[in-house]
Amino acid sequence: MPVGEGDRVVLIGADGTTHLVRAGEPLRDGDSVLPTSAVVGAEPGARISLLGSEFTVAHPVWRDALDVLKRGPQIIVPETAAQIVHLAGISPGSRVVEGGTGTGCATIVLASHVGETGHVDTFDLRESSTDLARANIELAGFAGRVDFHSGDVTDCPIVDADAMVLDVPEPWGVLSAAIRVLRPGGYLVAYLPTTTQVERLMRSFGQEFTAPTCRESINREWELSKSDEGLRPSFTGPAHSGFLVTARRI
Amino acid sequence: MPVGEGDRVVLIGADGTTHLVRAGEPLRDGDSVLPTSAVVGAEPGARISLLGSEFTVAHPVWRDALDVLKRGPQIIVPETAAQIVHLAGISPGSRVVEGGTGTGCATIVLASHVGETGHVDTFDLRESSTDLARANIELAGFAGRVDFHSGDVTDCPIVDADAMVLDVPEPWGVLSAAIRVLRPGGYLVAYLPTTTQVERLMRSFGQEFTAPTCRESINREWELSKSDEGLRPSFTGPAHSGFLVTARRI
Amino acid sequence: MPVGEGDRVVLIGADGTTHLVRAGEPLRDGDSVLPTSAVVGAEPGARISLLGSEFTVAHPVWRDALDVLKRGPQIIVPETAAQIVHLAGISPGSRVVEGGTGTGCATIVLASHVGETGHVDTFDLRESSTDLARANIELAGFAGRVDFHSGDVTDCPIVDADAMVLDVPEPWGVLSAAIRVLRPGGYLVAYLPTTTQVERLMRSFGQEFTAPTCRESINREWELSKSDEGLRPSFTGPAHSGFLVTARRI
Amino acid sequence: MPVGEGDRVVLIGADGTTHLVRAGEPLRDGDSVLPTSAVVGAEPGARISLLGSEFTVAHPVWRDALDVLKRGPQIIVPETAAQIVHLAGISPGSRVVEGGTGTGCATIVLASHVGETGHVDTFDLRESSTDLARANIELAGFAGRVDFHSGDVTDCPIVDADAMVLDVPEPWGVLSAAIRVLRPGGYLVAYLPTTTQVERLMRSFGQEFTAPTCRESINREWELSKSDEGLRPSFTGPAHSGFLVTARRI
Repeated sequence: MPVGEGDRVVLIGADGTTHLVRAGEPLRDGDSVLPTSAVVGAEPGARISLLGSEFTVAHPVWRDALDVLKRGPQIIVPETAAQIVHLAGISPGSRVVEGGTGTGCATIVLASHVGETGHVDTFDLRESSTDLARANIELAGFAGRVDFHSGDVTDCPIVDADAMVLDVPEPWGVLSAAIRVLRPGGYLVAYLPTTTQVERLMRSFGQEFTAPTCRESINREWELSKSDEGLRPSFTGPAHSGFLVTARRI
Repeated sequence: MPVGEGDRVVLIGADGTTHLVRAGEPLRDGDSVLPTSAVVGAEPGARISLLGSEFTVAHPVWRDALDVLKRGPQIIVPETAAQIVHLAGISPGSRVVEGGTGTGCATIVLASHVGETGHVDTFDLRESSTDLARANIELAGFAGRVDFHSGDVTDCPIVDADAMVLDVPEPWGVLSAAIRVLRPGGYLVAYLPTTTQVERLMRSFGQEFTAPTCRESINREWELSKSDEGLRPSFTGPAHSGFLVTARRI
Repeated sequence: MPVGEGDRVVLIGADGTTHLVRAGEPLRDGDSVLPTSAVVGAEPGARISLLGSEFTVAHPVWRDALDVLKRGPQIIVPETAAQIVHLAGISPGSRVVEGGTGTGCATIVLASHVGETGHVDTFDLRESSTDLARANIELAGFAGRVDFHSGDVTDCPIVDADAMVLDVPEPWGVLSAAIRVLRPGGYLVAYLPTTTQVERLMRSFGQEFTAPTCRESINREWELSKSDEGLRPSFTGPAHSGFLVTARRI
Repeated sequence: MPVGEGDRVVLIGADGTTHLVRAGEPLRDGDSVLPTSAVVGAEPGARISLLGSEFTVAHPVWRDALDVLKRGPQIIVPETAAQIVHLAGISPGSRVVEGGTGTGCATIVLASHVGETGHVDTFDLRESSTDLARANIELAGFAGRVDFHSGDVTDCPIVDADAMVLDVPEPWGVLSAAIRVLRPGGYLVAYLPTTTQVERLMRSFGQEFTAPTCRESINREWELSKSDEGLRPSFTGPAHSGFLVTARRI
C-alpha cells in the first residue's frame, strides 16, 4: 500500500541514518528544510533521493522516535528502559505509574509496550520536564496512552496499578505510596545511579514487598576494526547504565 | 473482583516463591499435589495458607510463566529475550518470525510483547523442540498468538514481517530468506554464543541490510551480604548472555 | 645444568597440569605417593613419565606455588593480589605491611615482588591463619622475606613502610596506624568485598592521604568451544574480585 | 635522611598531582620552568610551596614515572602490563623478551618487576618507537635493565628466557621464534585487541605449548558523586584493556 499524505514514515540511509517524517511535510535537518513530497505515493521499500543521498522509505518502528528525541542530561537510556519493562513484567494492557518523567525517554518505552489497551501515568515535580516529555511523546505517537502530572508521585491517586517505575533520588520515600498504588502481585522498579541509594532502598522494603533484587548491566558494542584486524569491543559509549532495584507488592 | 474457578492466579510467598495455578485445579509441587480450592472466591491480595506457608493471591504477570517452564539446555535467558524485543523494535501488533524455537523461552517473551494484535511464527528443525515449546507457550497463555513450524526457517513463506529473530548456529545461511521475509525497515536480530559467528555474520550482510551492530551484556545481581558487611555483587548466576547482532532491512 | 637432588622443580603435563616438587622427594597426589628420583640429573625440558602421563621438567616460576596452596575460604585471588602490587607501586626492595594474612595467598604474591631485598610483615588476629599462611609461604620458598605476627595490625611498630595492604573488615579503623607506619609517598591499598565498606573508607581519609580511588575488575576467561562453533567467554570462574581502594600518604 | 642534590624525588600535591624531579634541577610544567632548589636538604614528608600550591616531598615509587611518560597512541595501559607481569610469572631476576616496544610503557612495568638482577630485551621494527621508549625508560630510571633492539623479534638470538611478551599484530608468526627463545616452563603472553587475532593465535599453538588461555579484564573506577548521592561507577576511562593470551613452553 503506497504512503499517504501525512503518514508517518522513516527514511533509512545506507549507513543506517534515519529521518522520521510525516509524508509531505518539510523535513528539518540542521539548517536545511527539505521537501518530502516525493515520499507521498511511494511504496514501502522505494528508494528516494534526498540531500544527495539515497534513502529507503519504510513504516517506522516505535524505536525510530527515540533517535529524534529532544534530550536533556542524564536520562535513562532506552536499553535500560527495556530492562525495566522486563523486570516490571509490563506487557500490552499494563497500567503503569512512573515517578520522574524527565525527558520522557523511559515514558516512550513504557507507552510502547503497554499498547493501546494499557496506560501510563507519569509524575514530575518540574513543570519544564513535563512539557519536554509531552512533546517527545507526541513525536513518538503515544500521546493517547500517557497522562502527564506535574507533581509528586507520592500524591498519586491511582490504585491497582500493575507496575510502578521510579527515577527519583529518594525512592524509599515513595514506598508507602507504592503500597497504596500497586495491586497485589504488581512490581516496583527503581532506577538508581549509586550503590548508596541501592542499599538504603533495599533496607527500606517492609513486609508488603517480597524478594527485592538489584540488577546491573554492563553493555558494550562490538565492531569490526577499521584497519581490519578483526572484531573487537568498542571503546566508546556508556558502559554502565545504573542499578535497577525490583520488588513485588504482596 | 474475586477469583473465579479456572482463573489463572499466581500465589506469591513471603520469600518471593511463586506458584502459577488455575483456581480450583490441583497444584503439583514435586511429589505433592495440593488442593487450591481456597483460592476460588478469594480477593486479589488475600493471604491463604498452603504447605504451611502463607501465600498472597494475585493476578499473574506474563513473566510468572517463565518461572515454571520446562527447560532444556542452553536456552536464551529471558533477560536476553527482552533485549532482543528492544533491539528488534517489537511492540504490540508486531509480526515476528523466529528461527530456532528451542524450549520456547524467547518465543514466550516475543509473544508477550506482540500482544493479541501481533503474531509470532516460530521454526525449528527438531520436532521434539516444537512439542516442548508448544507446551510451554500454552502454560504461558499465548497459544493463540504463536504458530509452530517443524522445519527450516529458510523455507519460511511469510512476507512483510516486522522482525526476524534467529537462534541458529549459522545465521548467515538465513540472510537471503530474511531479505524475502522482512518488510523494508524491519529488523533482523541474531543471538550468537561465539565471536567467531559474530564476525562471520557481520561480514555477510549485503546492501539489503544497513548498519549492523553487535551488542553484549554483562548482567549481575547485587545482594546484601548475609554477615551484613553491606551491599555486594553476587557471585553466582550467568554473567554473560551471548552476543546480539542486529541489522535493518532496507 | 641438570637438576640436583633437592632442587625445586615443576613438572608440567601436556594439559597444563603442574606438580611442584623437590627432586628426589616423594610427590603426594591425592592418595598416591610417587617417586621422583627420575627427575634428579634430568636437564630442564626433559620429558619424564609419571602416573602414566608425560611431564616436562622445568624450573618453577613463583606462580607455580600458588597452584598447590592449602586454601581456606574467601581468599584474595592471585589476580587481585597482582593488581594490589601494581596499585601500591610495589617493586623489588619494597617494605610492605599486610593486615589480614588469611591463607597467605596475597602474602606470597607480595613476597614474590619485593624480592630478596624487600620485606613483608603480615599481621592476623587468628593464630590458625598465621600457621596456615606460614606453611604456604615456605612452600613458595619465600619464608626468608616474610615475618608473621599474630595480632592486630593497628599495633604494628614498623615505620617508613612503602606500602600497607589491608584485607580486614574495618580498614577505617587502621588509618591512624597507617599514618604512623607509611612513609611519605607510600600507598595504602584496601581490599573490600562490599560497596558499603568502600564508601565508609573513602569518606574516612583525612588530609594525610591524597586522591583516594576505588577500582574494580571484572575478569573473564575466553575459550574455544568444544563443539567448535568458535571463541566465546567462559561461563565459569569468579567474575568479580572485590573492590580495591587506594590512597597515598602525604 | 634529607634529599641530596640530584636525588630523584616526587612532589605530591593535596589533590594527588605528582611531579617527578631531580632535586635542584628546574622542573618544566607546560611553559613554566620552576626552581626546585628548596627540595635539596628537605626531609621526606616536608611540605614545600610551588606554583602557589603545597607539595609533599617524597621518594618516588616506580609507578611515578608512568605519569610523566611521553605517550603515543594505543599503548598498553599500565594496569594491563601489571596483568602481563602476573600471567607471565615475572619476578625479580626474570629475563624477559618483549616484541613490540611501542612507547615503552609495558617495558617500564616489566623492567620494574625484574629488578636489578633481571633483564628485559625489547624489539621494535620502528626506530622511532625505540627512541621514544629509550627516553621513557631513562626517565623511569631503568636504563640499565633494558636493551633496545630495532628489528624483528623473530630474529631474537636470546635463549633460555623466562618470559616472552608480545604486542605485535601477528603473534602466530612469532611462535617458532618463541620456542627457541623460551626456556622449558617459560611463559608467552600476547596482548591482542581483537577476538579474531585471539582465535587465530589460540589455534596456532603446537605441542611445544601447553594450556593456552585467554583472559580479558573490564576495569572501572568508582567515585563519590559530586552531588553526594553516594558511591557510583565512573563513566569515564577505558573500560576494556584488550585480550591477553597466555601459554607455557614445555
